[in-house]
Amino acid sequence: MAEAWQRPFCGSLRPEHIGQQVELCGWVRRRRDLGGVVFVDLRDREGIAQVVFRDQLKSQAETLSPEDVVRVVGTVVARENPNPEIPTGLVEVVAEHLQILNRAETPPFVVEDRVKASEELRLRYRYLDLRRPEMMANLLLRHRITFEIRRYFHEMGFIEVETPILTRSTPEGARDFLVPSRLSPGKFYALPQSPQLFKQLLQVAGLGRYMQIARCFRDEDLRADRQPEFTQVDVEASFISEEDIFALIEGLFHRIFPLVGIEPPEHFARLSYAEAMESYGSDRPDLRFDLRLADFSGPSAECDFLPLREAAATGRVKGFVVPGGAAFSRKELDTLGEQAKELGLPGIVWMKKTADGVASPAKKALGDAGVLRFLQAAGCQDSDLLLIAGGPEKTVLTALGQLRLWCVRKLDLLPQNQFAFCWVTDFPLLEWDEETQRFYACHHPFTSPKPEDVELLETAPEKVRARAYDVVVNGLELGGGSIRIHDAELQRRVFACLGITPEQAQQKFGFLLEAFRYGAPPHGGIALGLDRLVMLMAGRESIRDVIAFPKTTAGNCLLTDAPNVVDEEQLTELHLQLKP
Amino acid sequence: MAEAWQRPFCGSLRPEHIGQQVELCGWVRRRRDLGGVVFVDLRDREGIAQVVFRDQLKSQAETLSPEDVVRVVGTVVARENPNPEIPTGLVEVVAEHLQILNRAETPPFVVEDRVKASEELRLRYRYLDLRRPEMMANLLLRHRITFEIRRYFHEMGFIEVETPILTRSTPEGARDFLVPSRLSPGKFYALPQSPQLFKQLLQVAGLGRYMQIARCFRDEDLRADRQPEFTQVDVEASFISEEDIFALIEGLFHRIFPLVGIEPPEHFARLSYAEAMESYGSDRPDLRFDLRLADFSGPSAECDFLPLREAAATGRVKGFVVPGGAAFSRKELDTLGEQAKELGLPGIVWMKKTADGVASPAKKALGDAGVLRFLQAAGCQDSDLLLIAGGPEKTVLTALGQLRLWCVRKLDLLPQNQFAFCWVTDFPLLEWDEETQRFYACHHPFTSPKPEDVELLETAPEKVRARAYDVVVNGLELGGGSIRIHDAELQRRVFACLGITPEQAQQKFGFLLEAFRYGAPPHGGIALGLDRLVMLMAGRESIRDVIAFPKTTAGNCLLTDAPNVVDEEQLTELHLQLKP
Repeated sequence: MAEAWQRPFCGSLRPEHIGQQVELCGWVRRRRDLGGVVFVDLRDREGIAQVVFRDQLKSQAETLSPEDVVRVVGTVVARENPNPEIPTGLVEVVAEHLQILNRAETPPFVVEDRVKASEELRLRYRYLDLRRPEMMANLLLRHRITFEIRRYFHEMGFIEVETPILTRSTPEGARDFLVPSRLSPGKFYALPQSPQLFKQLLQVAGLGRYMQIARCFRDEDLRADRQPEFTQVDVEASFISEEDIFALIEGLFHRIFPLVGIEPPEHFARLSYAEAMESYGSDRPDLRFDLRLADFSGPSAECDFLPLREAAATGRVKGFVVPGGAAFSRKELDTLGEQAKELGLPGIVWMKKTADGVASPAKKALGDAGVLRFLQAAGCQDSDLLLIAGGPEKTVLTALGQLRLWCVRKLDLLPQNQFAFCWVTDFPLLEWDEETQRFYACHHPFTSPKPEDVELLETAPEKVRARAYDVVVNGLELGGGSIRIHDAELQRRVFACLGITPEQAQQKFGFLLEAFRYGAPPHGGIALGLDRLVMLMAGRESIRDVIAFPKTTAGNCLLTDAPNVVDEEQLTELHLQLKP
Repeated sequence: MAEAWQRPFCGSLRPEHIGQQVELCGWVRRRRDLGGVVFVDLRDREGIAQVVFRDQLKSQAETLSPEDVVRVVGTVVARENPNPEIPTGLVEVVAEHLQILNRAETPPFVVEDRVKASEELRLRYRYLDLRRPEMMANLLLRHRITFEIRRYFHEMGFIEVETPILTRSTPEGARDFLVPSRLSPGKFYALPQSPQLFKQLLQVAGLGRYMQIARCFRDEDLRADRQPEFTQVDVEASFISEEDIFALIEGLFHRIFPLVGIEPPEHFARLSYAEAMESYGSDRPDLRFDLRLADFSGPSAECDFLPLREAAATGRVKGFVVPGGAAFSRKELDTLGEQAKELGLPGIVWMKKTADGVASPAKKALGDAGVLRFLQAAGCQDSDLLLIAGGPEKTVLTALGQLRLWCVRKLDLLPQNQFAFCWVTDFPLLEWDEETQRFYACHHPFTSPKPEDVELLETAPEKVRARAYDVVVNGLELGGGSIRIHDAELQRRVFACLGITPEQAQQKFGFLLEAFRYGAPPHGGIALGLDRLVMLMAGRESIRDVIAFPKTTAGNCLLTDAPNVVDEEQLTELHLQLKP
């Protein structure tokens, strides 16, 4: 193998290299001229090496500026003043030859982790941003994670198959990106929102175990941390059950999380959707802390505080204990109340013990004893705060779920470096939409109902649970999937629940339904959001930090200035014109 | 790990399983009812197992039809009548339990390797086509190759980075696919023709060694074996030379070709572009056979056959010996002559020895002795045929290159299971286009000229050779690349040769040129066509056979019916309308 591939990285020099002559190529991080000697920190993707220039090389080295690209030949020696804080800090390179490969102008921001530049400037000069050690480390980590994911699935007998990017609408229901066809006037390809249909067709083809690290596209109104294109670890297999998927993904996480020093538990916690909503007010509960929602409908129904009594009569009353929440100031309690209203609650009732008995806005109606009864029922300690709210079930649960997270952040109750893994199962199959007055598929229309609930499809569709599951880490939904329908008759019944006529089904998914007639195996799968997974493992707050060339929330690439205008000629070739 | 992942495949049963109880899931290939016993061949992606149903299971098994999906529990036993022709042929499974998981209708074609269905029908029912053993084997091989490619580059310190699919025009010069932006009215993303600019920017970022198995898109007028989307093994590295790339790719091929039993030579042959054209009339010479073009300008210049004498005076006269070509019939020689004219030659002169002396259309002018002089100069044996043509250099070389291949196919001189690897180097940097009266970049505008030719850029640009290279196997160009320009001043001079003004350069590639100001390392790379590579290794004739869901030459997916019409509403959202 040629020499270039055996050349050490600056960041990989260690005491075992002492005495060796090495060739280093990299970027000047900084230069210090000290007592007739020039010290240069030379940077590459793996880290930094200190290079010492003396004698004849000194004057050449004195011309070096940050980000100049150089090649140095020299000998590795032990450092006189070791720096134990960096991995290469025990050695330095005494230069014998210096070649300046390219000069750099002064960059628009300093290429260091402690960058002050706005994210906009960083995105515009992404190549300089990525040169910063923490960003480069994100790229390297992403590679190691994806490589390990592929190795794991390969060992498990999965076959990676590339599915088309130029395809037709898939059933996710978000807005498609379209690609006009030049050869078929008036027709368009759609970019896939996921390889859903293809991975199911590959099961019909008999592939058995499919995986792909797949690019997906959704033309959404962009939220803060979404990207128009994103990457998913896409998995599908035949002749399997939910338990097989759980074991498969737990095994995957056992493989990859140790890359960043995290050891997931042997088995992940499991909660049904109903339990997750009931206890945490969320279908992606953060289990790093407890703060479970408890039911106060009983005590509320017979209490003298009217808002709670009425809520208990018509809806639900739930609450939770905030450990240490007694310390909340009046202003913080007011903020909590405003938050509650923004989340759709009529308000929130707080209760706590004080030196003088109890405090609560409900104290007047309930009396000290009445408040104490709630506090005792909740198991509230002296330093704690009890929060209670009533109203329609879904509003109460989801709002309290949000307030739970708000309190945890406010009181800094989030444990550092702790990771809580769980499965949320038994999602509802269908979701009623008030606006359009119809059911929608919670997951997608090919998700199988639970066998014991199939008989409810026509009588109580809202009660039908799906064979669907999500994997959740620290309150972040990392992925989800389901066991699919492989029976044409059952598929027809689910379509009927969704108000999809046989004609519409034929028009939209005809090729899949047809495929199911020629030997469709039972199958299911899961898709993990790779960007989120890497973000979590890298300890970052934004997926943009783990994507090499991300777009802004408005869908723009500030580096290449995409999207951009095109010639009228190009549009004409595509049989299109701009709408005036 | 759960049981499903440890279940054996039908095709993986071997004598070592004898005595074990196994669970098999698969598709019924065929059923034979023999003397009170039902034999079923059960198929999955790995192969076929014979299952025997006796006693109570017999009547259930008798209902099985081809492509039914079943689950069988049974015990592996040695087969009474072994079939050594299939890998599982020494064993069979005596069924103890049969579960029919799904019934299949009669498929539109038989799911066997010897399929008679048209390619159109196969593409329409691609899931059945892929179920055929030879097609499934192609998918599995493609996975093994891509996995091994990734493992190799990982071991070599390369980092896989995902680059954007929604981006802006790249400099390949083919037509882009466009994606209208909804959020930026009147603007469009382009799908990348390659990650060229991003992989260079990643070098500026300091990544050092990049690779990606990348989807690329070209909206070309589709030729027989092109696809609008294709996959390339994309590679770029810093601080390297051509030799490093050659060693890297030779090492890769040493790793992957043995997967199909091919051992490439330690070092690949190397030819300059000039040598390849001169000796084989092609920049992707098939070196599995010799048949080199030789120069006949000398003997032609002084001969009495006017067409050759004139050609020698104004252009070139070249020819080659066809081993065994004396056996060509008159009709075949006529066809050769027609081919020559179609390829732009004025005609072709053939010469051979016969029992009566010599034969050739030039015999009248040259006499026996004159013809013999040519035959002897060419080293022509009695059974051989000499073909000679004259005219403008490029026409003569490329036409004879084509005729060389035609003769080899005609005479069946192609050795089976032989693989000839070579590098073609020193391509011209620029190519003159008569129509537009300007130079174009042969590779792309960032390709570096050879240092020793840089001084010719302004005086004799057509003579400048590029630091570009192709890897060619059996006459198939598997990939190509170059060392790039990293010096802003040199880039300006090359743009000037291409007639690109500084303003145009700024507008098209401004972000790359700007990046080069902040510390661009010397770098270069290569891209391999994965579809072609897998096709070659799988011994197939079409890339469609190694792509799971390919499109027709008209760009249509016959399975999903993409591209397709969209709602007017969708177009309005994209600020577009169809051109009447």
